[in-house]
Amino acid sequence: MAPVTNGRVLFNSIPKGKQLFLYNYPIPGKTTVYDPTGTIDVETHPLNGGFLVKTLVVSVDPGMRVRMRNPEEPSYVPAFKLGETITGFGIGIVVRSENSDVAPGKHIYGMGFQYQEYFVLPGMAGFAFLEKDPLLSWTVYTGAAGLPGKTAYMGWKKHAHAKRGETVFVTAGAGPVGFAQIPAPLQDGYPTGQARGLKVVASAGSDEKVQVMHEVGADVAFNYKTNNTREVLAREGPIDIYWDNVGGDVLDAAIENAAIHGRVLLCGMVSGYNTGQQGIQNLFQAISKTLTISGVTSFRLFPEYEAEFYATVPPALARGELKYKEHVAYGLEKAGDLVLAVQTGANTLKGKAVIVVAA
Amino acid sequence: MAPVTNGRVLFNSIPKGKQLFLYNYPIPGKTTVYDPTGTIDVETHPLNGGFLVKTLVVSVDPGMRVRMRNPEEPSYVPAFKLGETITGFGIGIVVRSENSDVAPGKHIYGMGFQYQEYFVLPGMAGFAFLEKDPLLSWTVYTGAAGLPGKTAYMGWKKHAHAKRGETVFVTAGAGPVGFAQIPAPLQDGYPTGQARGLKVVASAGSDEKVQVMHEVGADVAFNYKTNNTREVLAREGPIDIYWDNVGGDVLDAAIENAAIHGRVLLCGMVSGYNTGQQGIQNLFQAISKTLTISGVTSFRLFPEYEAEFYATVPPALARGELKYKEHVAYGLEKAGDLVLAVQTGANTLKGKAVIVVAA
Repeated sequence: MAPVTNGRVLFNSIPKGKQLFLYNYPIPGKTTVYDPTGTIDVETHPLNGGFLVKTLVVSVDPGMRVRMRNPEEPSYVPAFKLGETITGFGIGIVVRSENSDVAPGKHIYGMGFQYQEYFVLPGMAGFAFLEKDPLLSWTVYTGAAGLPGKTAYMGWKKHAHAKRGETVFVTAGAGPVGFAQIPAPLQDGYPTGQARGLKVVASAGSDEKVQVMHEVGADVAFNYKTNNTREVLAREGPIDIYWDNVGGDVLDAAIENAAIHGRVLLCGMVSGYNTGQQGIQNLFQAISKTLTISGVTSFRLFPEYEAEFYATVPPALARGELKYKEHVAYGLEKAGDLVLAVQTGANTLKGKAVIVVAA
Repeated sequence: MAPVTNGRVLFNSIPKGKQLFLYNYPIPGKTTVYDPTGTIDVETHPLNGGFLVKTLVVSVDPGMRVRMRNPEEPSYVPAFKLGETITGFGIGIVVRSENSDVAPGKHIYGMGFQYQEYFVLPGMAGFAFLEKDPLLSWTVYTGAAGLPGKTAYMGWKKHAHAKRGETVFVTAGAGPVGFAQIPAPLQDGYPTGQARGLKVVASAGSDEKVQVMHEVGADVAFNYKTNNTREVLAREGPIDIYWDNVGGDVLDAAIENAAIHGRVLLCGMVSGYNTGQQGIQNLFQAISKTLTISGVTSFRLFPEYEAEFYATVPPALARGELKYKEHVAYGLEKAGDLVLAVQTGANTLKGKAVIVVAA
């Protein structure tokens, strides 16, 4: 068989700025570049005892921004290497294998997926097999049934400690994690969130997003650009559980409106990734209100909750009990646009950003 | 019997400044005033069904500063009323009673003690009986066996989740709570903290305080004015458990040097009570390191731990297994000086500040 194009996405330059939280957004075609020049002969490409993966879908996430930094700046995730293919969460199918444990036709997923049409893996370290519910598409497994869904499910299980009648606040509620956090109370066993009387308040930056937050289950949804977050929280609160995806002043506003014994689940601080973090002023109230503030890093919760997650969430999504929204782009050449869009919260973005590389 | 002097401490003026964290220290004789003009006839003063309390000791605590504010500013504790006697944690003896449940000779304690030599209580609401270990003085029951001790014991029990070999960092380690927090690992059942290999690193603002921190059990003690806290923490860390009594930049330094899955116990933010809080810049690392940050408000832990505390801690103090330090002043006329000293961390202050009102 003749060689075919093996396109990939390269990390090309570090957005200018200082420290970890650089003061510039990633620019399509500059920060990342789509490279269509490579080819591969799928039938003859040497495997050296490994196996060849055909990429089906790759995820585009706000946290990828943290990897687009000077590698000398420490972080919990390694920096992307300049001139090399970016990596992240993806799903693929094994098309050829010299490893007897990894049969062709098997689907695999992992955090170390190459953003490339085909690539060779030496073994399954860092990857796992995945079976798809026939009613769901693979794209769902990057979102509501993927990392954002895991963050919501596992963070909720570990840290929410929800009680009947409590109020939950979600920011960036139309973002990939927020979409999964809004219905998270529904995942917390039966009776469902609504039956337990949990109220979910969610915010995002456009009226269209307010609409989709209602669709995935928010009881109260508002546009923070046209409403005063503090006023809404004072009216709808106090807040028992706050899913923080943005940090900065909104975190301060949530702390101001937190209930005694409130729980703050820190999932992201997208407000500061590109423009610098704003200091948190109200932490004293964590003492006076006996708050518990927990950092949620889902991969550290995998050992405890991953089997339960896959047994629970994809079936609930397939049955329609949990709602989700996706923003699907086709082809790795769209990666740069999506990488930027998840940082800016572009209005065109209406759900979990995912790229379909092959069907 | 002839009337005797019934001296008291009045709240006289609000230290000037803005918001909750006023930018001025409390001034002896101005913020609070000792009023020696009152008298009482102990034998005939009307009780109206209540009982007369003779004050033995009253506690002076940094958190009292929060009450010296404009009452229109909300907080978790009520503001002191101008022109009225200040209140706080004290211990007294019932000298006369018209309440059959409250016998003369009984000792009582409570958070609502009048800072006055004698006062009448209508009932025991908000107060409780207390029996003293014969080897301890009443002053100890305001400190290591009082509220600071409870904060340390209950905060540790609830939030520390210590594991063998971990490192604990305590700031304001020579303050009243810090003194109880340094040996807190010792309270965590047998084997003792040292036997479990917990290392306690403690900081304070003078070489004399470094000395006393060693005496109460710190493995590493340093003067933050002559050492760089970040350097010490980088050398002695990473920090698994941080008892934060100061907030501000030191909290940021502790977060920078926190271990994965570290626990931050917020007990006070004395760095900002008088000079304004500094925003916390590093909260993103709470996500990357999966930190848990817990506000410790001991009175909300009383229902769970108070009986256990009194059964455990005073005997351990009496046996000398837990060490403590006190700074005892005699007479309510010293209140103003101590109220200021616990805010400034005056070098003359060498332990829990307490006033002996009567023997």
